[in-house]
Amino acid sequence: MSKQETEKVRVFALGGVGEIGKNMYGIEVDEDIIVIDAGLMFPDDDMLGVDIVIPDVSYLVENEERVRGIILTHGHEDHIGGLSYVLKKINVPVYATKLTLGLVEEKLKEAGIHRHAELRLIDSNSRIKLGNTPVSFFRVSHSIPDCVGVCVETSQGAIVHTGDFKFDQTPVDGKHADIGKMAAIGQKGVLCLMSDSTNAERPGTTKSEAEAGKGIKDVFARTKGRLIVTSFASNVHRIQQVIQAASATNRKLAVVGKSMVRVISIAGKLGYLKIPKDLLIDMDEVNKHKPEKVAILTTGSQGEPMSALTRMAKGAHRHITITPNDTVIIAATAIPGNETSVSAVIDQLYRIGAEVIYGSQAVHASGHGSQEELKLMLNLMRPKFFLPIHGEIRMQHAHQQLALQVGIKKERIYIVEKGEVIEFTKQQARRGPKVPSGHVLIDGLGVGDVGNIVLRDRRLLSKDGILVVVVTLNKKTNTIVSGPNIISRGFVYVRESEELLEKSNELVTSILQKCVTENVNEWSSLKSNIREGLSRYLFEKTKRRPMILPIIMEV
Amino acid sequence: MSKQETEKVRVFALGGVGEIGKNMYGIEVDEDIIVIDAGLMFPDDDMLGVDIVIPDVSYLVENEERVRGIILTHGHEDHIGGLSYVLKKINVPVYATKLTLGLVEEKLKEAGIHRHAELRLIDSNSRIKLGNTPVSFFRVSHSIPDCVGVCVETSQGAIVHTGDFKFDQTPVDGKHADIGKMAAIGQKGVLCLMSDSTNAERPGTTKSEAEAGKGIKDVFARTKGRLIVTSFASNVHRIQQVIQAASATNRKLAVVGKSMVRVISIAGKLGYLKIPKDLLIDMDEVNKHKPEKVAILTTGSQGEPMSALTRMAKGAHRHITITPNDTVIIAATAIPGNETSVSAVIDQLYRIGAEVIYGSQAVHASGHGSQEELKLMLNLMRPKFFLPIHGEIRMQHAHQQLALQVGIKKERIYIVEKGEVIEFTKQQARRGPKVPSGHVLIDGLGVGDVGNIVLRDRRLLSKDGILVVVVTLNKKTNTIVSGPNIISRGFVYVRESEELLEKSNELVTSILQKCVTENVNEWSSLKSNIREGLSRYLFEKTKRRPMILPIIMEV
Repeated sequence: MSKQETEKVRVFALGGVGEIGKNMYGIEVDEDIIVIDAGLMFPDDDMLGVDIVIPDVSYLVENEERVRGIILTHGHEDHIGGLSYVLKKINVPVYATKLTLGLVEEKLKEAGIHRHAELRLIDSNSRIKLGNTPVSFFRVSHSIPDCVGVCVETSQGAIVHTGDFKFDQTPVDGKHADIGKMAAIGQKGVLCLMSDSTNAERPGTTKSEAEAGKGIKDVFARTKGRLIVTSFASNVHRIQQVIQAASATNRKLAVVGKSMVRVISIAGKLGYLKIPKDLLIDMDEVNKHKPEKVAILTTGSQGEPMSALTRMAKGAHRHITITPNDTVIIAATAIPGNETSVSAVIDQLYRIGAEVIYGSQAVHASGHGSQEELKLMLNLMRPKFFLPIHGEIRMQHAHQQLALQVGIKKERIYIVEKGEVIEFTKQQARRGPKVPSGHVLIDGLGVGDVGNIVLRDRRLLSKDGILVVVVTLNKKTNTIVSGPNIISRGFVYVRESEELLEKSNELVTSILQKCVTENVNEWSSLKSNIREGLSRYLFEKTKRRPMILPIIMEV
Repeated sequence: MSKQETEKVRVFALGGVGEIGKNMYGIEVDEDIIVIDAGLMFPDDDMLGVDIVIPDVSYLVENEERVRGIILTHGHEDHIGGLSYVLKKINVPVYATKLTLGLVEEKLKEAGIHRHAELRLIDSNSRIKLGNTPVSFFRVSHSIPDCVGVCVETSQGAIVHTGDFKFDQTPVDGKHADIGKMAAIGQKGVLCLMSDSTNAERPGTTKSEAEAGKGIKDVFARTKGRLIVTSFASNVHRIQQVIQAASATNRKLAVVGKSMVRVISIAGKLGYLKIPKDLLIDMDEVNKHKPEKVAILTTGSQGEPMSALTRMAKGAHRHITITPNDTVIIAATAIPGNETSVSAVIDQLYRIGAEVIYGSQAVHASGHGSQEELKLMLNLMRPKFFLPIHGEIRMQHAHQQLALQVGIKKERIYIVEKGEVIEFTKQQARRGPKVPSGHVLIDGLGVGDVGNIVLRDRRLLSKDGILVVVVTLNKKTNTIVSGPNIISRGFVYVRESEELLEKSNELVTSILQKCVTENVNEWSSLKSNIREGLSRYLFEKTKRRPMILPIIMEV
C-alpha cells in the first residue's frame, strides 16, 4: 500500500465549538499531533466568581510525546490566553508570527514560564515540518495584524484551518489576504476545511476596518471638546486609526489602561503601529492641554467594572473624569454576555451629559467575515469535508446552511462538539471515539479547583443567602449548652425580620429538644432535622430557600 | 386671573425612564393626581435572587387622597405587573380597556385583593373626569390588542402619554391607530408629549405584525414534522396568527405553559381571539396525533429556566420532548438581559438536532415604533414640550435627536430620571423638587425586605463563597472549649484543599490563643482579628476573598 492509503488523519476541537472563545484544535496525522491555538474564554453567567475558563488538555498531556507543537493563528486572548496554563502542563514548541509571539512573550513572562518556553517565529510564507507533517500558512485579514490560516498537508489532502478571518478589500496595513494562495491550496486538494463561523448568521459582507476608521476620523473632525475613545486593546488596526485621527486633528493622545498600554508598547516596538513623534502624552498631562487639543484612548469597551473607562465614568479614576463637554466613542461591540455592562456604561455617560457615539454609528467593524465571505472561503478551498468551527452551535448550523448553498453535501459536513473526533481514512470520514474535553475554571490562583459542587453552592448562596445555625451540645448529658445562634447573610435584613429569626430560633430549639428527648444523637440526623424543619418553615413564611448550614459544637 | 393662568401642572415618572420596564407616571393638575400604568421590571444581573422589581410609590401613599385613579394603557406586565402591590398600599379606582381589565382581574384574584379593587371599564372613545380633570384616549397599535394613549386636558394644553405604540398599517385585528384623533389633539394644542422611546435607536419603520404572521405561516406551510412555536404569552396578535397558521395547515394546536393558557383563555372569552372549533387539544393528547398534524404553542420565548420550552428541550417536560424531527419557531426577540438564556435554548435545540427558526428569519415584529414612526407621532402632536419616556437613557437621548430633527428646540426637551418633576406654569416649564422614587425589590413573599446590604452579601457570597469559623470559648477561664471548626461553602472543594483548610485552622487557633493570652476578650475584636488574619492568608494563597463569618459560642 502506498503512503496515501495508510496515513491516518484525525481532527478534533478541545474548545471553540459550541461556544465563543477558548479556541483549541487538534490535528493528528499518524503519530503527529499538531495543536492550533490555546485560547481562553470568559465565564458564563452561571460560573459565579470564575475569572477565566480554559480548555481541558488532558488528552494532550497523556500524549505529550506525540504533540509536535502548538501553532497560534493570531494574538487574541481567545486564541492565546490559555497558552501559559497549557505550557505548564506540556512542554512543546510554539509557532507564531512576530506580533503574536510578541504578545505571547509578555504573557509568559507574567506567568513566570518565559525561560522554559520554546517560541519559534513563522510568517505566512513559512513552510515547516511538525514531526513528519508539512505545514504551511496563508495570510488572512482580521482585527489584529499578522494573522494566518494553517494548511496541514496530509497524504489524503490538506487540512485547512482558517483561523479568524474576513476578506477586507481595503486593509488598514495594506496587507491583503492571500486569496491566490488559498485558491492554489484549494486546487491542490483540501480534504477538510475548518472555518470560522462567528458571523455565519450575518448576511452580506462585513465592512472594512477602514470604514470604522473613517467613522472615527469624522467624529474627531467635527468634535470641539475632549475625545475619549475605547476599543479592544488588541485591535491594533483600530488603534492605528485612532492615532491617525488624533494626529490629523492636532490632538495629543493619552493611552490609559494596562492592556492598552501593553499592546501599544509591543505593537509599536515591533513595527506594527506607526506613532508620530510627540503625539503620546502621559495621562497625568491630560488636564494640562485644552480639551479640543487632547484625546484619550482607553480600555473598557466591554463595560468591565474595573476598567479605566468605567472608573472615569464613575468619577473613580485617578487622573481623568468624564464631563458633560466630553465626547466618548465606543469603537467596539459588546461580545455576547457583555451587552448589559456595555449598556450600563453608555447610560452612565449619558447621565453625566457626555455625547456618546456607539453601536451602528459607523465606528466599529467586525473582524469576522459575514455570509458572502464565508461562502467565498468555501469556494476557494472546495473541501471534501467541512467542519464549521469558532462559534456557538447555532452559528455552526448557519455556516452549514452556507456550505449547502455552495454545493457541499450534508453528509460531508460535520457539526462537532468539544472532544468529538472526525477520522479520515482513504478519503472517507467518520466520527471516532471521543477525547476528553471540557471547561477548566480558573478562579484567582486556583486552576480547576472550582467545579460543579462549588458552583452549585455559589448559585444557591447568590439566590437566597445563607442561615448558619450553631449550637453547642454537651454530648454526655445530651443538653444544649449554648445556642442555638442563627446568623443570616444575604437572606433578609435582620432588623426588619426580627420576628422571623426569633421564631426560627424557637423552632430550632424545639427540634433540638425533641431530638435530645428521643435520643437522636447522630449528628447527621440532628443536622438534617434542623435543615428540613427550618427550610420548610422559612419557605412557608417567605417563599425563599436560603442555604441552611447547621453546625453542632461539642463540649 | 383666569383658570388658564392658575392651573398648575406637574409630570413625573416613578418608573420607566432610565430603564426598561416598571412604567409608572404621574400627572398632577392642581389637586388631582392621575397615575398612568403600574408596571413591573425584571431584576438586573446584580439583583441576585430577586424575582421582580416594582416602583417605589411612597409619594402616592403620602398623597393618597389626591390620587384620582390609575389609568392602564395596555395589558403588558411592564405596565400592569405592579398593580396588585400598589393597590395594597393605596385604594384608588383603576381605569382600563376590556382586555386589559380582563388580564388585571386575573392578577388581582391571585393576589387576593380582587374584591376591594374598583375597576372601571373605558374604551378609546371614553371621556372621563378624574377629579376636575378631563381625560380622553386614543387607540394605538402595539403587540397586544386594546391599547390606548392618554390625553389629560389642562388649561395650559393637553398632556399626552402615548403608551407603547407603533403605526401598523396592516393591523392583525383590522383596528388602526386613531391618527385623525391624534392630529386633532395636536391641533387643539399639546403642552407636553410623553412618548415611547423603546425603539428610538432603530432607523426606519417597524414592520407590521402581519409580516411576522406571514413568516410563521410560511414555516407552517413548508414544515413536514411537528411544530413548536414560542412567543410572549401576552402577544395576542401573534397567538391569533399561530392559531390561523395551524388551522390553515390542518394541525391541532396544544397550548402549554401557565401564562399562555391563561392569556388564551381570557382573550378568547372576551372575544379578542378567534379560535376555530376543535382546533385546540390538551397537551397529553399531542402524542396521539401524527407529527405533521400537530403544533404546540408554548411559553419560554425568553429562555426562562423553568419555562415549558426549556423543559421540553431538556427532556424534563411531563408530556412533550423535543426530537430531531421537530421544528421550533422562536417568534420573539430576547428582551435586554435575556440574550444569553435565549441563545442557550436555541443552542440546546440545535444540539438535539431540531430545526430552529429564530431572529431575523421574519417570524417576529417589534411592538414599538422605530424612528420614522416616532417622528410621525411628534409631528402629529406638535407638542410645546417633549419628554421621551419608556427606555434607557441612551434611548431617551436617541429620541431627543429625533425631536430635534422635526424642529423641537432642545430647551423644550426634558430627559428625566425617576422622581424628577417637570412643572408647567403659564406654558413655561422648569424642573421642580423631586418626588421619592426607586426600586422596590420583591423576593418570594418579601416586598422591600431585600436591600443593598442583603444584595451586597449575596454578591460577595456568589463570587467566592463563605467560610464559617466557629469556636466555643469558656468566658470565665478564657480557654477554647471546642473548635475552631471551619466550614466552607462555595469557596473550594474541601477534598482538594485539605491542606489549605488545615493551615487555616492552625492560623485561627493561633490568633485565638494570642487573643486569649493578651486578654482580648471583646468578641468584636476577636472576630475582626480572625476575619482579617484569615482573609489575608487566604488571599495570599488563592487570590480569592470569600466571606468570612466568625461565630463565637460561649459556655
